[in-house]
Amino acid sequence: MAVFSQGVDVSFGDCDPAGIVFYPNYFRWMDATFHRLLSERAGGHAQLCRQLEAKGIGLMEARLSFRSPATEGQHLDYRITQIEWGGRSLVVSYEADVAGRRVLDGMERRGVFVMSDGHMSAANVEGLKLALGF
Amino acid sequence: MAVFSQGVDVSFGDCDPAGIVFYPNYFRWMDATFHRLLSERAGGHAQLCRQLEAKGIGLMEARLSFRSPATEGQHLDYRITQIEWGGRSLVVSYEADVAGRRVLDGMERRGVFVMSDGHMSAANVEGLKLALGF
Amino acid sequence: MAVFSQGVDVSFGDCDPAGIVFYPNYFRWMDATFHRLLSERAGGHAQLCRQLEAKGIGLMEARLSFRSPATEGQHLDYRITQIEWGGRSLVVSYEADVAGRRVLDGMERRGVFVMSDGHMSAANVEGLKLALGF
Amino acid sequence: MAVFSQGVDVSFGDCDPAGIVFYPNYFRWMDATFHRLLSERAGGHAQLCRQLEAKGIGLMEARLSFRSPATEGQHLDYRITQIEWGGRSLVVSYEADVAGRRVLDGMERRGVFVMSDGHMSAANVEGLKLALGF
Repeated sequence: MAVFSQGVDVSFGDCDPAGIVFYPNYFRWMDATFHRLLSERAGGHAQLCRQLEAKGIGLMEARLSFRSPATEGQHLDYRITQIEWGGRSLVVSYEADVAGRRVLDGMERRGVFVMSDGHMSAANVEGLKLALGF
Repeated sequence: MAVFSQGVDVSFGDCDPAGIVFYPNYFRWMDATFHRLLSERAGGHAQLCRQLEAKGIGLMEARLSFRSPATEGQHLDYRITQIEWGGRSLVVSYEADVAGRRVLDGMERRGVFVMSDGHMSAANVEGLKLALGF
Repeated sequence: MAVFSQGVDVSFGDCDPAGIVFYPNYFRWMDATFHRLLSERAGGHAQLCRQLEAKGIGLMEARLSFRSPATEGQHLDYRITQIEWGGRSLVVSYEADVAGRRVLDGMERRGVFVMSDGHMSAANVEGLKLALGF
Repeated sequence: MAVFSQGVDVSFGDCDPAGIVFYPNYFRWMDATFHRLLSERAGGHAQLCRQLEAKGIGLMEARLSFRSPATEGQHLDYRITQIEWGGRSLVVSYEADVAGRRVLDGMERRGVFVMSDGHMSAANVEGLKLALGF
């Protein structure tokens, strides 16, 4: 069961000369799915940063495995399947389907970045976890 | 009254360091709105090209006037307000609002491009007009 | 004679299923050409905003006319051909060629946006003109 | 020592409201670095596909680890550090620096996709290896 999901309509301009989605767009939609979760649960990235006194909820790592292609006019169901809360990072797992056919699965490792003593560092993610209701 | 409209959710990654939508994204969504019309009325760009024996329904000109900014988490109502059918081109007029506030208006001039005698040229747009039910 | 120019290498992923550049990318490169001018003449957008006490040097209007297509592997020479300095806006004219063949021409109208009395407005552009050495 | 490298100038519009590169752009530039290698060694993706009777040299997996941020006006040195040639896939390793500071490292697993008996499958990559002079 998904933690969160959103639909993505694949448009002509999202596809490359091979006629299938240009793969960086899948990362763009992965990020957008996470940010949609932030919006719905906690008013969005900007408000969360103020609340957590953070500079950003940014990326440490991102990975996707491409199982089958998607093309113009298809509708992706892009899902967050799990969030694993570590000390100073969280791992968000994703998968996306077109009409029940798996298109991709992957993950993002994110941190809550704060400034302290003039340098950026990854803070404890407990505040984010609470703010999102997990 | 709009000819066609679709919703666009502005995501964090659509915005620039000034915190507002990076303007080429407005052109991307303008194109996506047109392609969504093609999908709903005639099965999409690929099917229309086969039907019209065309290489593409491409751009001759595109223009947007930016009336007010949009930002992360806002929902755009992106509308086609009019299509003017000329001989060898069509002019598609657009506007987009956030919650009733005008964000932009503009236009695309498009042609139906075909190959004849080894060179690309703009064909009569009557076939496209009929295929889209105008 | 160009005021400023930069090269752009068209990559596979910049092109659409018709095999030619997806047109919003031409706007992205137009914006990048302007920002490259800001970098070379005045240290970039962020530094200029501090210097001019502005929120951004943003868009009021953008337009491109597409003269011929460009495709994967081609090298665009993207040029600013003229800047017209008005009172509260500037009009930047552009053209781009591939190997001497015209691909596009167009313009951006930009303003220097400042906050005053809690609302955003377009300031006089004289400070920007001086900062860029025009 | 790098197998191949290219420079990328980070523009204002490549960055997000946190003022740093929006991460899907790093994947876009990773793909562009690979395609630049194809262009320089074998005339580009389209020509290679004709030569290898392939539909595309596409992605099976992509991953990036983000070591430090990059921002507007910085110059990335984006490098292919290694290519491991398997039977039906190749693993391309990447890293990118700004002025000697590591920004990211990661990989793409790619295949040479062909149609046979009406379905797409990953072919032996030996032909690609030879075409690229490895």
